[in-house]
Amino acid sequence: MSTAAKPRVAFIGLGIMGQSMAGHLLAAGYPLNLYNRSADKMAALVAKGARACASPAEAAKDAQVVITMVGFPSDVEEVWLGPQGIVKAAHNALLIDMTTSSPELARKLAQAASAAGHRALDAPVSGGDVGAREAKLSIMVGGEPAAFEEALPVLQCMGTNVRLLGPAGAGQHTKMANQLVIASTIMGVCEGLAYAKAAGLDPSAVLQTIGSGAASSAQLNVMGPRIVKGDFEPGFFIMHFLKDVGIALSEADLMHLNLPGAKLSKSLYETLAERGLERAGTQALYKYYEEPQS
Amino acid sequence: MSTAAKPRVAFIGLGIMGQSMAGHLLAAGYPLNLYNRSADKMAALVAKGARACASPAEAAKDAQVVITMVGFPSDVEEVWLGPQGIVKAAHNALLIDMTTSSPELARKLAQAASAAGHRALDAPVSGGDVGAREAKLSIMVGGEPAAFEEALPVLQCMGTNVRLLGPAGAGQHTKMANQLVIASTIMGVCEGLAYAKAAGLDPSAVLQTIGSGAASSAQLNVMGPRIVKGDFEPGFFIMHFLKDVGIALSEADLMHLNLPGAKLSKSLYETLAERGLERAGTQALYKYYEEPQS
Repeated sequence: MSTAAKPRVAFIGLGIMGQSMAGHLLAAGYPLNLYNRSADKMAALVAKGARACASPAEAAKDAQVVITMVGFPSDVEEVWLGPQGIVKAAHNALLIDMTTSSPELARKLAQAASAAGHRALDAPVSGGDVGAREAKLSIMVGGEPAAFEEALPVLQCMGTNVRLLGPAGAGQHTKMANQLVIASTIMGVCEGLAYAKAAGLDPSAVLQTIGSGAASSAQLNVMGPRIVKGDFEPGFFIMHFLKDVGIALSEADLMHLNLPGAKLSKSLYETLAERGLERAGTQALYKYYEEPQS
Repeated sequence: MSTAAKPRVAFIGLGIMGQSMAGHLLAAGYPLNLYNRSADKMAALVAKGARACASPAEAAKDAQVVITMVGFPSDVEEVWLGPQGIVKAAHNALLIDMTTSSPELARKLAQAASAAGHRALDAPVSGGDVGAREAKLSIMVGGEPAAFEEALPVLQCMGTNVRLLGPAGAGQHTKMANQLVIASTIMGVCEGLAYAKAAGLDPSAVLQTIGSGAASSAQLNVMGPRIVKGDFEPGFFIMHFLKDVGIALSEADLMHLNLPGAKLSKSLYETLAERGLERAGTQALYKYYEEPQS
């Protein structure tokens, strides 16, 4: 594939998922600028031909497409709107935030980008580290249809289910809906398994029995066996899930929508975070039921 | 298939599911006694060769296998232990309760059956009316291994996933675990969709986006589209789900296990039942989020 025809992409934020995602763009022939707060995270992709930059601004200034995949909404805001931010530094670019962040911030960023002569999209993902590594992410996009069309070849290097859901913020809103569904689903999985264990059943046999019927879910069939094995390693950190559900509940409040299931799930996860489990995987919610009072 | 070699089965309780289940036994060549409180429900199977009886006792007295599939635990207790009950009437029989009922009652029935010279199993099902019609139920069995082996050919006429989970009560316990998982899962589905609607998203597009990832579940993919269409017809009545979750929570209390997700789900369903929705399908939980305060 010729690289000459492809726009230069800046990729900002090279965590576990960002590493894989940026790698797919490089492999597809996009000239790539990188920025990451910890510079060592850029080395592997630099060895394959990407260019390391010293700031988001430096990464953005000669890029036609700028992608951000950072941590919290405050990080997104700094990278987009700060003094070394991409909105000021880029020139007539397509700016895409793939961080899971707030719909409200996505709308603010879209306005700021537009005022500076850019196109902007919010495009959070689901599928986790495995989806990122295998380029099989679901990518939920909010923004203008023309910007979506422009972004599609780039996004399709990273995901198989890339969809425009509405105007600025709609990608983040869709991701919030996704996280709200998960928040109570994982609670149900943990409660069913805690009950099975307390009742003296073999939890593996129970999983095999209920895992293909009305109770079945990705959470039951992926997290259930991990819970039964006592494997609470993070596929997704509790601290990040708390961020997401917190954003969703704030947005719901703004819409006067009461979501007691998600509120309950959040409060249980907060209990676990207070016990020092914020870097355990979300399936560690099961530990709440093992010792709910401690 | 020769019917001469097959034991006579009594089937008590010909609701939507019982009709289909008894029909499969008749089709497989089992001579069949029937009892149902409303006698008209027996007509279709009598026309195919089953024998209508005037009481559970009459149905049980010459049957080698007696199956009950009735409504509430109080119905089960009456049919098994009442003056016209099967425990007194049957002779050295295999008694199988397929109603979703309490594990505690299952143990009590097993003891009474054993004292009267019978074998007993608790064998609740999941898979709903469609699973019953297509003989694809999951059947969760509690009891002695020898009784399970004896029951297996009969149960396999009605289900594809027939499993012994442990001693008396273990089938009911497994069904409770199943219902506990569903209780919070359906809450997550409704909250995600209520959020999507409030955020102005197209709920169908959201379902297509999140329905194959970490948020996916049988509840999301079966109930989600019904909710989006405004179809709240019962696949499973709210009043029956409240019975099941109520039993599960009582058992959990006995085991000193706190299940706040299921408690919350039950309280939301009770709100809907008070609004007259007890005969709507479980997906009508969505209505709570449309008008939570009314």
